[in-house]
Amino acid sequence: MKAKISPSMMCADFGRLEDEIRILEKAGVDYLHIDVMDGHFVPNFAIGPDLTRSIRRLTDIPLDIHLMVERPENYIDLFEPRLGDIVSVHQEATVHLERTLQIIKAAGAKTGVAVNPATPAIMIKPVIDEADVVLVMTVNPGFAGQKLVPSTLSKIREVKEMIQESCASAEIEVDGNVSFENAFKMLAAGADIFVAGTSSIFNADMDKLEAAYKLKQILSVKEG
Amino acid sequence: MKAKISPSMMCADFGRLEDEIRILEKAGVDYLHIDVMDGHFVPNFAIGPDLTRSIRRLTDIPLDIHLMVERPENYIDLFEPRLGDIVSVHQEATVHLERTLQIIKAAGAKTGVAVNPATPAIMIKPVIDEADVVLVMTVNPGFAGQKLVPSTLSKIREVKEMIQESCASAEIEVDGNVSFENAFKMLAAGADIFVAGTSSIFNADMDKLEAAYKLKQILSVKEG
Amino acid sequence: MKAKISPSMMCADFGRLEDEIRILEKAGVDYLHIDVMDGHFVPNFAIGPDLTRSIRRLTDIPLDIHLMVERPENYIDLFEPRLGDIVSVHQEATVHLERTLQIIKAAGAKTGVAVNPATPAIMIKPVIDEADVVLVMTVNPGFAGQKLVPSTLSKIREVKEMIQESCASAEIEVDGNVSFENAFKMLAAGADIFVAGTSSIFNADMDKLEAAYKLKQILSVKEG
Amino acid sequence: MKAKISPSMMCADFGRLEDEIRILEKAGVDYLHIDVMDGHFVPNFAIGPDLTRSIRRLTDIPLDIHLMVERPENYIDLFEPRLGDIVSVHQEATVHLERTLQIIKAAGAKTGVAVNPATPAIMIKPVIDEADVVLVMTVNPGFAGQKLVPSTLSKIREVKEMIQESCASAEIEVDGNVSFENAFKMLAAGADIFVAGTSSIFNADMDKLEAAYKLKQILSVKEG
Amino acid sequence: MKAKISPSMMCADFGRLEDEIRILEKAGVDYLHIDVMDGHFVPNFAIGPDLTRSIRRLTDIPLDIHLMVERPENYIDLFEPRLGDIVSVHQEATVHLERTLQIIKAAGAKTGVAVNPATPAIMIKPVIDEADVVLVMTVNPGFAGQKLVPSTLSKIREVKEMIQESCASAEIEVDGNVSFENAFKMLAAGADIFVAGTSSIFNADMDKLEAAYKLKQILSVKEG
Amino acid sequence: MKAKISPSMMCADFGRLEDEIRILEKAGVDYLHIDVMDGHFVPNFAIGPDLTRSIRRLTDIPLDIHLMVERPENYIDLFEPRLGDIVSVHQEATVHLERTLQIIKAAGAKTGVAVNPATPAIMIKPVIDEADVVLVMTVNPGFAGQKLVPSTLSKIREVKEMIQESCASAEIEVDGNVSFENAFKMLAAGADIFVAGTSSIFNADMDKLEAAYKLKQILSVKEG
Repeated sequence: MKAKISPSMMCADFGRLEDEIRILEKAGVDYLHIDVMDGHFVPNFAIGPDLTRSIRRLTDIPLDIHLMVERPENYIDLFEPRLGDIVSVHQEATVHLERTLQIIKAAGAKTGVAVNPATPAIMIKPVIDEADVVLVMTVNPGFAGQKLVPSTLSKIREVKEMIQESCASAEIEVDGNVSFENAFKMLAAGADIFVAGTSSIFNADMDKLEAAYKLKQILSVKEG
Repeated sequence: MKAKISPSMMCADFGRLEDEIRILEKAGVDYLHIDVMDGHFVPNFAIGPDLTRSIRRLTDIPLDIHLMVERPENYIDLFEPRLGDIVSVHQEATVHLERTLQIIKAAGAKTGVAVNPATPAIMIKPVIDEADVVLVMTVNPGFAGQKLVPSTLSKIREVKEMIQESCASAEIEVDGNVSFENAFKMLAAGADIFVAGTSSIFNADMDKLEAAYKLKQILSVKEG
Repeated sequence: MKAKISPSMMCADFGRLEDEIRILEKAGVDYLHIDVMDGHFVPNFAIGPDLTRSIRRLTDIPLDIHLMVERPENYIDLFEPRLGDIVSVHQEATVHLERTLQIIKAAGAKTGVAVNPATPAIMIKPVIDEADVVLVMTVNPGFAGQKLVPSTLSKIREVKEMIQESCASAEIEVDGNVSFENAFKMLAAGADIFVAGTSSIFNADMDKLEAAYKLKQILSVKEG
Repeated sequence: MKAKISPSMMCADFGRLEDEIRILEKAGVDYLHIDVMDGHFVPNFAIGPDLTRSIRRLTDIPLDIHLMVERPENYIDLFEPRLGDIVSVHQEATVHLERTLQIIKAAGAKTGVAVNPATPAIMIKPVIDEADVVLVMTVNPGFAGQKLVPSTLSKIREVKEMIQESCASAEIEVDGNVSFENAFKMLAAGADIFVAGTSSIFNADMDKLEAAYKLKQILSVKEG
Repeated sequence: MKAKISPSMMCADFGRLEDEIRILEKAGVDYLHIDVMDGHFVPNFAIGPDLTRSIRRLTDIPLDIHLMVERPENYIDLFEPRLGDIVSVHQEATVHLERTLQIIKAAGAKTGVAVNPATPAIMIKPVIDEADVVLVMTVNPGFAGQKLVPSTLSKIREVKEMIQESCASAEIEVDGNVSFENAFKMLAAGADIFVAGTSSIFNADMDKLEAAYKLKQILSVKEG
Repeated sequence: MKAKISPSMMCADFGRLEDEIRILEKAGVDYLHIDVMDGHFVPNFAIGPDLTRSIRRLTDIPLDIHLMVERPENYIDLFEPRLGDIVSVHQEATVHLERTLQIIKAAGAKTGVAVNPATPAIMIKPVIDEADVVLVMTVNPGFAGQKLVPSTLSKIREVKEMIQESCASAEIEVDGNVSFENAFKMLAAGADIFVAGTSSIFNADMDKLEAAYKLKQILSVKEG
């Protein structure tokens, strides 16, 4: 399975959104990562349905909608998920995680379960068969520019084992400080989808397209 | 006092944000209205700090930041308010409204107090001397495209009287279904700042610049 | 306008619900009052959608659904309101009272706005034109068997004046310690709809039908 | 140990509650399952203290009170638990689960710990010695008529093992889509108490008494 | 009626609490003001039941317990109120203000209703007959050392008029920046009880006893 | 490693705080345990920043600040933590436990992770490397004078093993019913820091200094 890239649109320059998206299309990214924040689950705000619709009008790249919100079950419809999109919700944000995954599936999207750095892998075991994606947060959610929490690397391995033991098919997504160096470690630990933010594609000091190619190359090791 | 216009950026086409802003600059709008939503105070999400920063990079038009969030006192700094900006918080969203206005003032911005359609004018009387702006919601906050709540017109008049009786200097802002027809009624009732959304500038059937000029013309009646 | 009676079903003997309802039909009551509680807005629980449906199957008397719940806007559909029913929500329970009334109207029912004893009448003024019913709580909501809060009698008069000054058509409903003696005072103060509980129809020491007739007789004074 | 049946009273026809209870008595059911909902922990409402008292007046069958409410520690007294009753609270609904079990025990009832489908079995391990009942939700709580979540069958087995390893004596209760077919699987997995709802006793297409006998027969396999 | 003084114990030096209290006794203060904070209604913490009990063991001065907490109705018993004490709760902190006053009265203490600077006087009108004390916050609650909010002086006058018009007997208490200078203005506006903190008795630059005498002298003007 | 003692200041006699602290200094205790409660995470209130500052002025013994509050990440600065202090937050109280530990570390204090009796040890595994202290609650937090929850002894052992397997260096602190008898069992199970309250040092029937020496002696077994 080829590693996939999901650039974090929260880090894009919204003033030239179309250009940014054209570069990402050229780079062949697999998803556009849409950060949704409610100021409560995380102490910040990010992308809403209107901006999401603007992005959809510009491209056919599937969306990877990351709901960093309390009670996500109430907000799925707002983002009008489509076939091929991922919608991820946090294990810590709802007592009805299984029902929430059913709602996402019924809406036609891939189901994602996200876990914060302090959340043990075992917390998602009861839904591992129903998750298309497990989103392992490698930093605490809410802000760009944070440093990798080291223990999340072993969590990736734990989740990988859990998936294999359950004969499940979930892909593992990683989000947070996915630098070129960390990406490789995450890949080795079992990650499949890589959220690219200010540590790679949206690094102010690099050309976006070059950065994307470099990231792809590093991740292509797996394909061999 | 000249009527002012504050286009609701939530209604803009984010795919061509720079073009949209150039048109708004050409039209001579006074503010850019930034809708911030937390999914709790209102059941929707809109614009976050990153998009706000992108807008700032494109223009010097002051921002009119409308915090539709619970406990807004905790989120003011996130939006890095500047001299000349307005930051509005809802009376219904905090038990510490006076302290919140002090925080906004200390951050250098103009203080705004917003009230939902069902909130009586008297609820803001204790802070009327400390408000630079009273934002009278003329629809229920959270979504574009709603119909004017008729009783809000008399609330504009009530707030106007309250300001005059207190020898206060607050301007009255109106937000919600500010169509050409309604704008005139709101102006007559005492409104000073007009949030322009899908009922005028961002009406899909009109040219934005023409719509802005038309709105300005309607509102210029007051100047005579 | 004839005074109306709305027996509080929370006080009925659920073991013989059909008999209870037949008596209430014979007595010619106007509504059946359905208390809904969430343990949060009030520290108790009462009637849910299933029991409500059972009641509907037994009778055609319209329901008077009293939502003592936080954020009532989210629960209106659950009770499948019908033409002729009243759905009342508390002013204290939502920051979107006007929107909530729109939702009730759109669902086909009469709109009710309820106020706790400590809530001043002025809090409902902005929606007085949109309310079909103002439910003045004459005790604190949550439990049967409490004593009348005296200041609520003058609140009934205040609400009556507010309705007349606005040329509005809302009826005033009273709920709490509606004894024969208090009912008369409430009627004199301007009440139109009387929730009958353990102080009258469901008084353990009286025959229900007799009690209902007695209450009707007391309230018929108004008709002359 | 004989398998026990706990019909979900939320599914009963409240218009003829006494008849329903006589049938359940004739069928020899072991408990009456009382669903309590707060609209917050689950998005629905069900049975309150008044209806519970009405049921108690009609029968001596012990109650199996299932508190689907946030902070259940505050609501136990409201239901006046008796010796022989079960009171179950959700692990997900309180940070003071152990204290809550102490409160239930002090009130004289059997202690129950309920877990949602997405909650791993390990979350209740610290209190396994103090639980008289572990209530494994086999659907997401809040509504009748849902389909079995498959992974809950293996959770029943996990809980069974945990009980045996701890030399604890808790019984396992299952709630949700307990059809004749599923009941057998749940029994095989280790369940002891079966909540019977619209999938068996309260199936609209069956005679209640026959359905109850059929369920008992299926579950009697265990006794041999 | 003699003006009364209620020193804010939150400002005392807890290391020499007995000495502090002896000084306050010598100064003849009328109450000891006990600030209780929950980190939610106000973003701080202060005095709990244990420290309150320690204070009671040292003196017979009645306590003036100021609950700056959400849902104060749940916490009154914790502080074991006595005859002669005041227990004040915030209008903004509970939707059941009237019931809460009943609970305080039933516990034997004087009932106090507190209002934040941004809360209009009219919000307490329905309970003005049931309040023994109206606590007008003259700064935003939560922290010592803030500056008087000017509009609260006219609120004192408004509350005074409301009390007189209702032929009620509530005393007005003021809390926040009660300096010698402000105390006089508050007295003139109608205040009866003065919370003395870092602006007077607990001013680091003054002798406590002298400061208390000075405050008493200033307030004695009223007695003439 | 020598066992350490952390007397619970909530149990001290605040009327003679300096004397109490001198005794504790003489007894050579290692920390002063500061209970902070918000009325929400636990239904009680205890020590705030002002009393904490008073304690600091009296002694140089490091503080062991136990935040029994929801969203502790927002309250750490309030207590001005110093080098050598411990600040403990509850796993159950925040979805951002790892970020909260980073905040404590950045403030210069030792990081503590507290777990309620019903919380399984595995919940803290992802942060075991970042914790300087694991605070195993041996009673439910909120009140003094409760009985040991037996299953917490095996949790101490589990945590000990987890620390050793991770080659981590966290110390284990125990809080709740640390009587002489229980202290020994806790020590044997692996505890390092002992919160001493009404079961030992603050037992009303004993001399504090003697009680402290007795506790030290019992715990010195480990040193051999």
